[in-house]
Amino acid sequence: MNKIEHIGIAVKDLDASCQLYEKLLGTAAYKQESVVSEGVNTAFFRTGEHKIELLAATVAASPIASFIEKRGEGIHHIAFDVDNIYAEMKRLRNEGFVLLNEEPKFGADNKLICFVHPKGTNGVLIELCQEIKK
Amino acid sequence: MNKIEHIGIAVKDLDASCQLYEKLLGTAAYKQESVVSEGVNTAFFRTGEHKIELLAATVAASPIASFIEKRGEGIHHIAFDVDNIYAEMKRLRNEGFVLLNEEPKFGADNKLICFVHPKGTNGVLIELCQEIKK
Repeated sequence: MNKIEHIGIAVKDLDASCQLYEKLLGTAAYKQESVVSEGVNTAFFRTGEHKIELLAATVAASPIASFIEKRGEGIHHIAFDVDNIYAEMKRLRNEGFVLLNEEPKFGADNKLICFVHPKGTNGVLIELCQEIKK
Repeated sequence: MNKIEHIGIAVKDLDASCQLYEKLLGTAAYKQESVVSEGVNTAFFRTGEHKIELLAATVAASPIASFIEKRGEGIHHIAFDVDNIYAEMKRLRNEGFVLLNEEPKFGADNKLICFVHPKGTNGVLIELCQEIKK
């Protein structure tokens, strides 16, 4: 794992939270993006060399909706940049971690992503993400 | 705010979690430190230009103990590096954020720190931290 790529924060109202985080971070969101497969709208802020991603559910079946229902708004995941997501998934499986998807899937911000089960990481949802080269 | 300085993760058993995060991150903790005033033992890992801080309570009155009791283990806070914590505290107060301490206090890892109330930040506990120059 190279570095923290972004931190994902589950919010109820994306527009209101964008205004709030603009004040907090002193910088505006540089893009918004929908990820239909995950049922979320997202907004990204840059802070140094990493990003804050706000995520709001667009459908009741979204993982973000169920997270907020269980735990309230808050930090949802930490995403680590990796060079080769397949190799990192294999390494983590060999170390005994449980992955939430068997194969990488497409995420926001032009990434291949995979999640690690939080039961094996002290309740922290970890995302691996690899930039898709174009 | 310059960049994310570290992410704090609340854990029950610091030694067991250090072993786990060593496997996860592929790097060992580079230091452990007690912060008696906060009732915590901490361990730090480097990932890129930032850090992961594991925090375990040493006393029942520790904020980490009450966090785990309410929400279970997991991500506890995001800490942002600032050049001048007094100026940033003033800026955030003026923007309407509520700070958890009136004056900066001493934290782990040679820092002056201040927390922002999570009720004003979508449930995210934000720490400001400024390196103490020696």
